[in-house]
Parts: sequence; structure tokens; C-alpha cells
Amino acid sequence: MFLQKEINEQPQVIARLYQEERDNIKQIAAAIRAFDPAFVVIAARGTSDNAARYAQYLFGAQAGLSVGLSAPSLHTLYQTPPTLKRALVIGISQSGQAEDVRRVLEDANKQGALTLAITNNIESPMAKTAQYHIDLMAGEEISIAATKTYTAQLMTIALLVAELVENDAMRAVLADLPRSIQTTLDYSADIPNWADRYRYMTQFATIGRGYNYATAFEISLKVKELCYITGEGYSEADFRHGPIATVGQGFPMVIVAPQGVVLPNVQDLINKLKERGAELLIISNDETVLAMGLQQMRVPVVPEWVSPIVTVIPGQVFAMQQALVRGYAVDKPRGLSKVTVTQ
Amino acid sequence: MFLQKEINEQPQVIARLYQEERDNIKQIAAAIRAFDPAFVVIAARGTSDNAARYAQYLFGAQAGLSVGLSAPSLHTLYQTPPTLKRALVIGISQSGQAEDVRRVLEDANKQGALTLAITNNIESPMAKTAQYHIDLMAGEEISIAATKTYTAQLMTIALLVAELVENDAMRAVLADLPRSIQTTLDYSADIPNWADRYRYMTQFATIGRGYNYATAFEISLKVKELCYITGEGYSEADFRHGPIATVGQGFPMVIVAPQGVVLPNVQDLINKLKERGAELLIISNDETVLAMGLQQMRVPVVPEWVSPIVTVIPGQVFAMQQALVRGYAVDKPRGLSKVTVTQ
Repeated sequence: MFLQKEINEQPQVIARLYQEERDNIKQIAAAIRAFDPAFVVIAARGTSDNAARYAQYLFGAQAGLSVGLSAPSLHTLYQTPPTLKRALVIGISQSGQAEDVRRVLEDANKQGALTLAITNNIESPMAKTAQYHIDLMAGEEISIAATKTYTAQLMTIALLVAELVENDAMRAVLADLPRSIQTTLDYSADIPNWADRYRYMTQFATIGRGYNYATAFEISLKVKELCYITGEGYSEADFRHGPIATVGQGFPMVIVAPQGVVLPNVQDLINKLKERGAELLIISNDETVLAMGLQQMRVPVVPEWVSPIVTVIPGQVFAMQQALVRGYAVDKPRGLSKVTVTQ
Repeated sequence: MFLQKEINEQPQVIARLYQEERDNIKQIAAAIRAFDPAFVVIAARGTSDNAARYAQYLFGAQAGLSVGLSAPSLHTLYQTPPTLKRALVIGISQSGQAEDVRRVLEDANKQGALTLAITNNIESPMAKTAQYHIDLMAGEEISIAATKTYTAQLMTIALLVAELVENDAMRAVLADLPRSIQTTLDYSADIPNWADRYRYMTQFATIGRGYNYATAFEISLKVKELCYITGEGYSEADFRHGPIATVGQGFPMVIVAPQGVVLPNVQDLINKLKERGAELLIISNDETVLAMGLQQMRVPVVPEWVSPIVTVIPGQVFAMQQALVRGYAVDKPRGLSKVTVTQ
């Protein structure tokens, strides 16, 4: 089973990125400071789009840069690319073969923007189109559900922002991260013990906020890809504007709630969900919050800005276990291929 | 039943906006041209967030402006607002009481950005915070599920872009729109005849692309709010990157597929979904595409860029009918309030 193997490789992948790609990232950070972008645009699809959501918070909070997600069809189908000449434009794709994302980079180059591709293939079309490239160095990912390339994308973004603001405290946190990821994997060994309970779950929702908005989306995507059930990832705030109406007795919800600035808001929502009888599966490093869940998915204490790199891991393991208890093909879900080329 | 009444008021609301708010919008458009923004940031939650998705395509394709959606928690919870001084910052909210969106406008003012609020209440905190305000003029919306204020938001954005680029052809299309909306309502009178079939539907998905990406999200939100079932809106492209795995025999999908540049791509996805045995409910003005659906929700022929203002209407009626056949409270869904203030 490649999926299990790839999930377990994450400490080594993150350590390798830190050791071998940091010099390249330092040079790119210097080029970005010299370019002095007015804003950042990120183009991505699927799992990589969730990495872009993380980048929106990290660039915004740590580097003061406003990040927007690209609408690639403006470049491909409509052929009316917006003005990007003052932008840092980043394309993210595991395979580097996303043709629509590559087109965004190409249009941005023509306009004089600064372009960067983040892929797991240095020979890919996207890597060759962008002015700069960061290699995810994750090794081949065989399972169709992306796991190690997702956390490698987050780590790459975190390294880039840490070098952009030249912050030693951030660098130290990232150097220590492989250990926290290993601890998370050790904690997650408990998940198979209670996975059976969700064998006949047919719908669910996931919630996160701030940095972990991305995590909620990514866990939702993993469960959908691997288990063929509908569900959705939400921001804690957006969930209150409508979707909370779907929650009744026993409704299963994965809540991503590590310690940090947004935790009081998430905790308040947890209380409201408990009143409605929701069944809560909580990912946290806070004892009080963990105790509010029927299922407790523990992660180690890390600073909030880097927490998405650990909080997604129990979600990956949960999604994999759900596929296993249902007898589904874990490495090759029905109707998906590893490389999806959209226009 | 206020919901039905408010859905039916949409032709008058759109006509009123065109007649009474256009001079104000012209002045705002002139101010935006003078400011010459490097990019646009839109802050919104819930239904208004879907209006922002429409704006991303319209500003991009027609005015060459790159639009990003704001992460309000960077302003409220994290208190690290990104740099917005070269941006046009637009806050959208029916009530004008979204405190997090107001904070984005306030921070943008401090930085020297150009700020605009679009609300249905000229006395609201957001209207008073922004430098400019556009009144939706929709009259009081009593039903909790937003309908007429959503199409009014789209019309406001369309009017603003038409005035920004001073395009007479666009103006003419918008002047004629109330008639197309009335025609759509007339066509939608057929929906109650087949609504019963979906009485026990427990999950669904909606698909759109380009301009109608917003429509897919908004219809999904209406069904979730009114019927308490899980579902999700997708871009045609994103759906191929994972969620397509959830589609099996009989899976119900609402496909927004009016004539336009993206239709061939959506049509290709429709074929793939039919191969998987999905049950298709199609919103279109194209006879060939309509014929591919088990249920046909017809809309009149309008230019693609304005089509979201009509294509959402059968979705509103479908969501209302589903609530009715299930015996749910249509005007006040369980656990929702008209004004949701998040931070």
C-alpha cells in the first residue's frame, strides 16, 4: 500500500526540503524583495489549491502581502488575462503538468511579473515556464491521493516566507518540524482502533479557521477522494453563514482546532455544534478542546502558523482508514488519475 | 411565504437598480479609474462571497483587473492586515453589519486604498465605513435565505464594471435584463411538477465554470440552507481533480451550463458524468445541453457574462421547492438568523 508508505515518509521529506532546498529558496526570497510585489497571485488546482489557501494566511500575516487565488479560465478559456505586472505569481502543482496553471505563469511572464513554480518535477512544463522553481523533493508519489507532496508544498511556502522576512525564530521552528511530524504519526496510530464506527457514514463536514482553513479543505478532499462520500470543508466563520443548518443529531464533523489566535472562535462553534448533537472528531493539541470530542486526534504543540503541516496528518490517516474499512482501492480511487490536465 | 415573494420580486429589483443607482455607480467608476488600482480585493461571507466570485471573473475578463478574495481573519483575529494601499477594496454584505468585512474596509482606508461597500442598508456600519457605497435597493429581505439581494449584488457588480469600461453594449444588455429574469421565472414554474422525485435526496453536488462558478456555489448554499443536506459547489475543472470520485449511479447533480466560452468543457464533463450514471438536473439555454439532463431548467439566451443573474433563479426555485416537499420552514431555516456577525 503506497498511501501508507507515503504518509509515513513525511518526516524525511520535510527534513530533506529544509536541508537541500533552502539555499535556492533564499535566492528566490532575495529576488522577491528586490521586485517588491504589490500583491501575490497563486494558481493551483485540487490539493495544491489548499496549499494556496495556507499561503494566503502565511504571506498575509508574516510578510504583509495580499494573496489572491487565480481564476485560470480567465487565461485559458476566456483568453482575457488580468493585469499582473506588479504581482508575484506562484503556480503550484505536484506534477507540474497543470496546463491551465502553466498558462497563468506564461501570461504573467509576458506582463513582466515575477513568476515561481512549485512542483515535484524539475523537468515539468511549469518548472520550465516560471522564472524560478522550487523542487518539492518528495520523491515519486504513486498513490493518487496526494499526501507527502501536500505537506511538502506547505513546508516550501513556510520556508519561502521565513526567508522573505529573514526571521530566525521561524527558521528554527521549521528545522524542528520533522520531529513534530513523526510525533503526529505516532499519535495517529490510534485512529484504526475507532475507524469502524464511521463505516456507514455517508456525509460529513470539516471545519478550520485562519491557517487551518486550508487543513479543513484538504481533509475534506482526502475523504471524498478515498471514500466517495460528499462533504465539505469550511471556515468556522463561513459555516455560521448557512451551512450550520445541515447539522443535526449525530452529524459527523472533523474540527481542526490547534492552539492559536483563532481557537476561542472555533471553541465557541464547537459548543454550538455539541448543542445540536453533532458527533465531533477533533484534531488539536489543547487538552480542553480534545476533551470536547468523541474522537480525539492529538497533535504536538507547535506555533499556529506552522500547525497545518501537522494537523492534516491525522486527517490523511483517517481518510485512509475509512477507505480500508470500506474495502476500497486505497492507492487508485475509482475514476481518478494521478495527473489531471484541465484547461 | 416571503421566500416565494422575494424570488418573484427580482425583475423589479434589478430594474430599479438600473434606473435609480446608475448615476451613483458612474461616479464611483470615475473615481476608480482616477485611482488606477493595481488589483482588487473583495471581502464577503456566505451568499455575498458568491457575488465576489462572480466579480472575480467580470473584473478580470472585462476590466483587466486581478481580483482576490480577502481573508478577513487577517484583519480581525490575527490583526496583521496585508498591504492594500494600491488596491480597490470592496466589501459586500446584505445587512452591511458584517463586522469582519467592515474591519477590512477600515484597515484599507487607513492604508490609503479606495474602499467601496455594497449593502442593502445605507445606514449600516459598512456603508458608513467605506468611502463609497452602492445601495442594493432590494427592499427588506425577510426570508433568511438571500435571493433578491444576491441577484441585486450581481447586478451592482455588472453595472459597476460596465461603467468602469464605459461599454454601451454592456449597458444595453443590463437595461434589458429584467425581462430575461421574468422569462426565467416563467420557465421555472415547471419545477414543482418534478420536485417530489428529490424528496429523499440526501446528498448532491453542483457544477459551474467561469462566470457560473459563482452560481454553482450559490445554488449549493441555497439547497443546504433550506433543506439541511450536504452538498458542494464546484468548478468544472476542480471537480475533475478528486471530487468526481464521489459520483456513482443515480448521484444527483445540478449543472449550470448556459451558452458561452466554457460550455464545451462543461459539456465534456456532462458526458463523463452520464457514463457514471449520475442523475443530471441541467440549467441551460442550449437545446442540446438541456436534452442531456433528466430535468431541464430552461433560462433565456443572454450573453455569458450576465448569465449568472438568470441561471441562479431556477436553483433558488428548486431549493425552495425541496424545502416545501419536505415540509420545512421555508422562511426561517433551523438554526440560522438573518444577520450573522462573525469576527
